[in-house]
Amino acid sequence: MYSDEVQEILDEKSLTHGDRVSIETRENTEKGVLMPRAEQGNNDCLVIKLESGYNIGINIHNIEKIQKLEKKSKEPAKEMQKEKLRYDEDKPDILILHTGGTIASRVSYEEGGVTPAFEPEDLLDMYPELFEEANIESEVVAQMFSEDIEVEHWQEIAEKVAENRDKDGIIISHGTDTMHFSAAALSFMLQGIDIPIVLVGSQRSSDRPSSDAAMNLISAAEFVKEGVPGVFICMHANSSDDRAAVHLGTRARKMHTSRRDAFKSIGRKPVAEVDYEKGEVEIVEPPSYERKEEFELEERMEKDVDYMKVVPGMEKLDLERYKSSEGLLIEGTGLGHMPVNSFDEPTEKHKEVLEELEEVAEDSLVAISSQCIHGRINMNVYDTGIKLKDAGVVSSENMVPGVAYVKLMWSIGQAETEQEAEKLFKENIAGEIQSRETVKD
Amino acid sequence: MYSDEVQEILDEKSLTHGDRVSIETRENTEKGVLMPRAEQGNNDCLVIKLESGYNIGINIHNIEKIQKLEKKSKEPAKEMQKEKLRYDEDKPDILILHTGGTIASRVSYEEGGVTPAFEPEDLLDMYPELFEEANIESEVVAQMFSEDIEVEHWQEIAEKVAENRDKDGIIISHGTDTMHFSAAALSFMLQGIDIPIVLVGSQRSSDRPSSDAAMNLISAAEFVKEGVPGVFICMHANSSDDRAAVHLGTRARKMHTSRRDAFKSIGRKPVAEVDYEKGEVEIVEPPSYERKEEFELEERMEKDVDYMKVVPGMEKLDLERYKSSEGLLIEGTGLGHMPVNSFDEPTEKHKEVLEELEEVAEDSLVAISSQCIHGRINMNVYDTGIKLKDAGVVSSENMVPGVAYVKLMWSIGQAETEQEAEKLFKENIAGEIQSRETVKD
Repeated sequence: MYSDEVQEILDEKSLTHGDRVSIETRENTEKGVLMPRAEQGNNDCLVIKLESGYNIGINIHNIEKIQKLEKKSKEPAKEMQKEKLRYDEDKPDILILHTGGTIASRVSYEEGGVTPAFEPEDLLDMYPELFEEANIESEVVAQMFSEDIEVEHWQEIAEKVAENRDKDGIIISHGTDTMHFSAAALSFMLQGIDIPIVLVGSQRSSDRPSSDAAMNLISAAEFVKEGVPGVFICMHANSSDDRAAVHLGTRARKMHTSRRDAFKSIGRKPVAEVDYEKGEVEIVEPPSYERKEEFELEERMEKDVDYMKVVPGMEKLDLERYKSSEGLLIEGTGLGHMPVNSFDEPTEKHKEVLEELEEVAEDSLVAISSQCIHGRINMNVYDTGIKLKDAGVVSSENMVPGVAYVKLMWSIGQAETEQEAEKLFKENIAGEIQSRETVKD
Repeated sequence: MYSDEVQEILDEKSLTHGDRVSIETRENTEKGVLMPRAEQGNNDCLVIKLESGYNIGINIHNIEKIQKLEKKSKEPAKEMQKEKLRYDEDKPDILILHTGGTIASRVSYEEGGVTPAFEPEDLLDMYPELFEEANIESEVVAQMFSEDIEVEHWQEIAEKVAENRDKDGIIISHGTDTMHFSAAALSFMLQGIDIPIVLVGSQRSSDRPSSDAAMNLISAAEFVKEGVPGVFICMHANSSDDRAAVHLGTRARKMHTSRRDAFKSIGRKPVAEVDYEKGEVEIVEPPSYERKEEFELEERMEKDVDYMKVVPGMEKLDLERYKSSEGLLIEGTGLGHMPVNSFDEPTEKHKEVLEELEEVAEDSLVAISSQCIHGRINMNVYDTGIKLKDAGVVSSENMVPGVAYVKLMWSIGQAETEQEAEKLFKENIAGEIQSRETVKD
């Protein structure tokens, strides 16, 4: 909301959001579309969206002159492109499932806020090229920030995918914050899937000129046409808008808060790269795991699994609290360590931690991964690892830590007994575990 | 311990650990030094150390013939190199502080286990080149696995450094698991230090031919001679034994469980690279923070600080438990997010988390970093960030998450009030926070 003072000026000039205005300050003159004020920041500022697509705020006390150039424009007519929506049997059928995130949104110049854009007609407005690639259907599964995603959402998405296996491929629009967790969950739930399932997100909102949304979406569609079955993530391969990387769903991770090429493959190359300009897909390192022959939706997952990170000087290791859990993923140090051992005699604290760990592991599956992210757990090099193993802690091999956590939830959810869960956890289901022979580390 | 069966064979041939033996199996003949059996693994195996330095196990059931080649050798005499220990005033004075880890150890062929090697004489045996570089003194501070390190150890090391500021530089041997946490702690505690303090570790034990110990140690000594003040980490720059990288103590992270070049600079280039063969140091990107002019040991640190990692589907967010803590570092998703917000109305869970967070932040310093590792926290892009900020959560800017945790402990320990702690936390003390102008992210 603008302050009363600002609102008064707007009323006086009968200006409303969406009007194109010219604003003069002592320094310069800015032209753009008047925007509503977001909750944050100084509400003595007028916000206008420049031609370049960027928003700037101008403090009203600096404004010397304000002028309406053009009244709020209507949304562009949609009919003209309807032709493109006509079914073309030569094109692949792609279903787009929306779960939220920046990619499925755009700024509404009427409302000012970010609004979801879901219907094929809206997508057509935003990404007309997409409709040259495929027959597009779209469906809203959720509209959420991805940090909010929970097991139920993964199950719902997996069910939708299972119902739509007659398509040539499915693209899932997803917030980037937890996209690699979701990709892992879907990889396990849908292990026998015989079509490409591609998660796409964007690091810049769709209405910004620097947005990566269009390229990621269209590159995903290009990749779908290759027909490689499995679950993947398609995002920028670098900071320019010319190349997308397709990562295996179980071996990717968000490695930067804001860059467009935030996602990286861990311990392998991307499955494919897409040359956006040329529309060409290069398969770089195809998935090499043995895919289950018969498709079966395996969406059961245990929610009562915890994640514990080991850092030096932790006062409240407090393992007690995990005793009631069904599973615990420890993000340990180095090769998979935590303070349970010393060169000399184990201390009282060591003994206590080890005993508590043993108690936790008695009724639940406890696995350890490494905060190093890259590389493999090895519980045989130091006594520390051996002691942890003896206490019942299972190695997560070279699984990416976040993926190991999701795998733990899935393994426990699928299994009847703890032994069975452990067996599943250690098995390579969807490329999440690479053998020592494949990956030197 | 070997099994009775194995021991019997050894007794029969009057073989003991340290003897050089030849063992024939159907497939081949192996020659090496007989080793004692570690706790782990199959105790029906004889372990011998090959010429190559690697240990192999041979199942006694496969042994066709075993033969003693040479009796256990005595430790090599030390006198011959004593000359090198004589003080040379043209060389820099370097103190080596040992805290444990593989680098300060070697396999004892008498005892069989890994034993600490500390005295200058021992170092001379292991790394004679080191004594060509400098006048070396050495002191044992601790002998521990680095995952065991606690605030008290950091304080003890910092005190030792402060006492020895008359040296030209100090090298600290340290286990690699938590080396970057310790480097950060020492960077803050010793912010005004006017000599180079270099932490070195090794990823392979010192007696293995592939060990990185010697090169890291000698490269650290080469770097010390450059006289760049501050706290650094010196480890392999790549997988070959020809180049070491010197990382800034506040901007490094162990990024691989086992590779020799496990340490990477985050958000900057290494401070220097050392060409091991040529003994040349290239300063790549010197530290650019403003060093405190007057040295003062600032070792106070608050131990009661917790670390919480946010992952999807967390059942036990359980913020209640942090209410009594003095500080909490949240490793959030993306730009610094956790589930406190939605596109629509906040859910009950969201409200609850936000309220609890507010309560925690009332009496303690709560900061958020990102599991992305690379990039910067931005709490102004999404409502989620704004809500967290309003609840009292402080941005950790682009600090490496582990470093932010250590900084939180230090800031709270140094400050009289929470306001002062927050101010310290946000200030760039030792290069841990890079301004937006320096680093595009």
